[in-house]
Amino acid sequence: MADTNGRTRVIVEHVGPQIDKGRFPIKRVVGEKVNVTAHVFSDGHDQIRAELLFRPSNAKEWTCLDMRHVANDEWTGKFQVTEIVEYRYTVRAWVDHFETWRRDLGKKCSAGQDVRVDLLIGADLLEGASRRATGSDAEQLARWARELGDTAEPDVERAAALALSESVYELARRYPDRRQAALYTPHLGVSVNRVRALYSTWYELFPRSCGTGKAHGSFADVEPLLPDIARQGFDVLYLPPIHPIGRTHRKGRNNAPVCEAEDPGSPWAIGGSEGGHKAVHPGLGTLEDFRRLVKRAGDYGVEIALDLAFQCSPDHPYVKEHPEWFRWRPDGTVQFAENPPKKYEDILPLNFETDHWRPLWEELKSVVLFWIAQGVRIFRVDNPHTKPFAFWEWLIREVRTTYPETIFLAEAFTRPKIMQRLAKLGFDQSYTYFTWRNTKWELTQYLTELTRTEVAEYMRPNFWPNTPDILPEYLRYGGRSAFVVRLVLAGTLSSNYGIYGPAFELCVHDAVEGKEEYLDSEKYEIKDWDWQQPGNIRAVVERLNRARRENPCLQQTRDLMFLDIDNEMILAYAKCTEEGENTVITVVNLDPYHKHAGWIAVPLAELGIEPHQPYMLHDLLSNDKYIWQGRRHYIELDPQLMPAHVLRVHRRLRRETDFDYFM
Amino acid sequence: MADTNGRTRVIVEHVGPQIDKGRFPIKRVVGEKVNVTAHVFSDGHDQIRAELLFRPSNAKEWTCLDMRHVANDEWTGKFQVTEIVEYRYTVRAWVDHFETWRRDLGKKCSAGQDVRVDLLIGADLLEGASRRATGSDAEQLARWARELGDTAEPDVERAAALALSESVYELARRYPDRRQAALYTPHLGVSVNRVRALYSTWYELFPRSCGTGKAHGSFADVEPLLPDIARQGFDVLYLPPIHPIGRTHRKGRNNAPVCEAEDPGSPWAIGGSEGGHKAVHPGLGTLEDFRRLVKRAGDYGVEIALDLAFQCSPDHPYVKEHPEWFRWRPDGTVQFAENPPKKYEDILPLNFETDHWRPLWEELKSVVLFWIAQGVRIFRVDNPHTKPFAFWEWLIREVRTTYPETIFLAEAFTRPKIMQRLAKLGFDQSYTYFTWRNTKWELTQYLTELTRTEVAEYMRPNFWPNTPDILPEYLRYGGRSAFVVRLVLAGTLSSNYGIYGPAFELCVHDAVEGKEEYLDSEKYEIKDWDWQQPGNIRAVVERLNRARRENPCLQQTRDLMFLDIDNEMILAYAKCTEEGENTVITVVNLDPYHKHAGWIAVPLAELGIEPHQPYMLHDLLSNDKYIWQGRRHYIELDPQLMPAHVLRVHRRLRRETDFDYFM
Repeated sequence: MADTNGRTRVIVEHVGPQIDKGRFPIKRVVGEKVNVTAHVFSDGHDQIRAELLFRPSNAKEWTCLDMRHVANDEWTGKFQVTEIVEYRYTVRAWVDHFETWRRDLGKKCSAGQDVRVDLLIGADLLEGASRRATGSDAEQLARWARELGDTAEPDVERAAALALSESVYELARRYPDRRQAALYTPHLGVSVNRVRALYSTWYELFPRSCGTGKAHGSFADVEPLLPDIARQGFDVLYLPPIHPIGRTHRKGRNNAPVCEAEDPGSPWAIGGSEGGHKAVHPGLGTLEDFRRLVKRAGDYGVEIALDLAFQCSPDHPYVKEHPEWFRWRPDGTVQFAENPPKKYEDILPLNFETDHWRPLWEELKSVVLFWIAQGVRIFRVDNPHTKPFAFWEWLIREVRTTYPETIFLAEAFTRPKIMQRLAKLGFDQSYTYFTWRNTKWELTQYLTELTRTEVAEYMRPNFWPNTPDILPEYLRYGGRSAFVVRLVLAGTLSSNYGIYGPAFELCVHDAVEGKEEYLDSEKYEIKDWDWQQPGNIRAVVERLNRARRENPCLQQTRDLMFLDIDNEMILAYAKCTEEGENTVITVVNLDPYHKHAGWIAVPLAELGIEPHQPYMLHDLLSNDKYIWQGRRHYIELDPQLMPAHVLRVHRRLRRETDFDYFM
Repeated sequence: MADTNGRTRVIVEHVGPQIDKGRFPIKRVVGEKVNVTAHVFSDGHDQIRAELLFRPSNAKEWTCLDMRHVANDEWTGKFQVTEIVEYRYTVRAWVDHFETWRRDLGKKCSAGQDVRVDLLIGADLLEGASRRATGSDAEQLARWARELGDTAEPDVERAAALALSESVYELARRYPDRRQAALYTPHLGVSVNRVRALYSTWYELFPRSCGTGKAHGSFADVEPLLPDIARQGFDVLYLPPIHPIGRTHRKGRNNAPVCEAEDPGSPWAIGGSEGGHKAVHPGLGTLEDFRRLVKRAGDYGVEIALDLAFQCSPDHPYVKEHPEWFRWRPDGTVQFAENPPKKYEDILPLNFETDHWRPLWEELKSVVLFWIAQGVRIFRVDNPHTKPFAFWEWLIREVRTTYPETIFLAEAFTRPKIMQRLAKLGFDQSYTYFTWRNTKWELTQYLTELTRTEVAEYMRPNFWPNTPDILPEYLRYGGRSAFVVRLVLAGTLSSNYGIYGPAFELCVHDAVEGKEEYLDSEKYEIKDWDWQQPGNIRAVVERLNRARRENPCLQQTRDLMFLDIDNEMILAYAKCTEEGENTVITVVNLDPYHKHAGWIAVPLAELGIEPHQPYMLHDLLSNDKYIWQGRRHYIELDPQLMPAHVLRVHRRLRRETDFDYFM
């Protein structure tokens, strides 16, 4: 009882959104809103008031907003985040005697009861409000208190009317008695980043394949490609590791255990005599060349993203300089990566269980800060699920404290709970299972999980139809239209998506037999791409990315609504901005081989369309326009022509006045 | 980083059952089990071990049980509670290098790889286990470590076989390296009470109606009824408040605002010149009489439950002795209860917002302790939702610290979140919305919520078909069979149920027009019941309660499974003990007017019945027996005869050997 305030009668619980009891913040980007809900109730029948409190964590004062009772003791309120900083929010509520008194007075007056004593009680309440107020408000409240408390005043009806008036209500409400208020703890967090954390279009490219013929390409060779990459609509250019590559146990073409002299090795076998994670592969150029590439890309609105792969080739300088960061075997060798019986002798994992983990963590942080100093603000993190969660949580917090605009993408192709934990602890974006979700049922289930459950509060998906590691069967066997299908799905279902190119646009689909891996993979050799190869889908990429750029509803992922269509091979969905001013309906034939048709149900009410009102659909891929009216419409999609519609909805064909005229 | 152990790689999260982040304990009775689940995972691909830790809160040492991985990083374990005390439980997990090594060694051996270095690593691991062990275990582990580490030993195969042997595995497993283990916090609680908190059969009775004719009955008049109450199968006899009743503003018959001289008043208007909450109404007898009643009831296996109604009549001694516990109005009167425009001038609420709330709480606690001293251990709490939650949480904890076997039933007929909060904070049983849930859909929805959601972990429902306050429409209009329907539903759906009698068994159904209230309510007058009145359902009550007593599956509520039956008017469900040795199928015709029939689907697999195996159903109400085989069976229920089956399932008609013979 000692530390209880026995007079706090109101309960505030289930404040949300909330991740793992407030252990982790939810995520937003600048300009987004947070819809806060809470269960608020008290014993008895008194009126309750509840407020949403929020502040940037570097501010001292809360901003307070009145919350609204929805139903069944559930309250709601919302606020917008405007700065790239962590926000805090919570809910405060109290039993409000003034509002209770006013409500009851109204009922008694309606029933014609004697309210003289009630007016005296009201005078006390207004006097209390007056004491909490200052200046003219205090004077006004005191004046009203005297009027209600004046027992010599014979005109009870007039006094009751004053007591119930809006002006008394509004002023008294501004000075509530919060002494017994309940404040919800713990205060909850919102991790805020810039818009690109939510809306980004990635292009992955091996710079070493950008040279002439099979010569080792360099950063300078990438520069001329920048205008085209920007025109295609990409705003992030992600480069696999750019560091020196080890020679010991270097893999040959097609992952051969022994390499030829001219084989360049996998960029993920990081570190050689030329240096480690802070060095640049000599074939790519110098650090200065890299900084120039970052700058030139920026001129085109393209950001360079680097790969953070915290592992070492046997030739990495760390092995000699910091043997304590590796696991040594009884035979005096360093433990290499293995998944028995498979051995990856070209890769040495760092030993995060070392007694010297603190200096190791600091060194890895210094790697990130080194590249930040070169102008990089986006990192794609390789296999984060093979390093401790606590390390990532610390690293991301440390980096974002100084560079809050930094974005980390987790390449965690692993089990759901691990993927989710990495997102919770701070990764801004996550690779997903999209890469293997092909059917209507799979996509509907998975996207519902990503957009309609708690996951949507902390995990921002980044959809990749392919990566250098993964050539999915759907692409392997589906032909050119399969590439278009996966492109349209990735770019319209998720506001973050990316492709590994030019293998993707060129529809490269030769795989290692029995595996979802590229034959003659670019991971192990330099490619000489023909960027304009016939059959490429560059034009569709460009049109899709323009549709994304011009439609705000495609720049967020939580607004997804699946639409009913009576064909299992056709997936249809709408995206709509919160205020409803921008809507896109996407319809995709998931069967890359056959033409399919079906009747789609347009959710008119949700899209703000009247049943009698014609509306126009503008296909942003084909530029065709359709005029529809009402709910059900026929769709036909031939994959040989174009397997998808991306339809911008124009609600008002005519001005409303014209419309009335025609009706 | 300072307070992080960077080497703890395993994550333990979502440990359940868990109520509001561990803020409240879950509930169990002695002998019940707690099935604990947890999400446990680590970075990388190492093997993990997880343990369930539990202890009575007064014990220092944890008991540790190995948990089992089910799927998708979800682990499970269970423990039984055996003492009436709060238990704590949590989960501990760690990356297990010994198990990882053993798994990988096995794979390498299968692939025929050279494992000499691996054996040396194993020697180190066994040496570590040896250091953690003592006595002969330590010696044995050290001996094995030497064998694996002996590089002079040429027989690698023999050493590998030893390394992979069950004996090494079992002994090494007993001494794991838990230095980097993660221990889940907060530790979670289990509030444990005696079995009656889960399984109880209540009878509510006004002692003042137990006299001869309309004379004021007494505790002595209740005594002769005890054998019959026990024979009927009730184990809790709950008495409305037994205290002196106020005279000021006393209500007359049918809640008349003015009473006649001979009107006894409502027992809930507590307190008069004869005393308050610690006094006995003179008409009922003395405190000694009460103690004798408690004892005599106990001889019949019946416990007396008292009503805790923390409110006062205007004549209660508290008003003069503790004016600071009431809310005073500006006209010098005490604020009475009101729900404008309705006034309840015979009831003064206590003001829990008083500055003197601490002495008030202590006084109310002393009331409970006073009746505990008279032998009472069950309290039915009147309108708990009109007193602060913090008060109840404190009171129940205080009382149960000294008298852990005390049971509190919350009469919280209020909104869901409030009802749930009261259950969470400590009430052992709760009145429910069952009283108004009549249709198949309503009952299925509500019981699913009560038995299959988190609610089942902390709220023990107590089903009442009627109370002195509530005569539901279903009973009012449904005739005798409606009473049987509601009785059977209450007693088979919920392991706790009660009736307000003898109004219930006598099928009293005259209501105040337009209200669900009894006409000539016993709350305001003394009744002269004819306990054997023709048309009563006493025989059904007795048979139903015997069925409950003889079938453990009916003595718990969480084991409910609804069965498919193709008639909206028929509700069917099974209850089954955890080990499956006791099963009852109940089938109820919810339509009290018409005969209904349908085909029921018996979930053979869930009940452990082979498709070809005949099984016997013994109707515990009618004593009829049916032999069924297979899944679908015909049911027909005529409400004029008997609207329900309560069918005990006998799985083995013959011994299995006989059975094989006949096949």
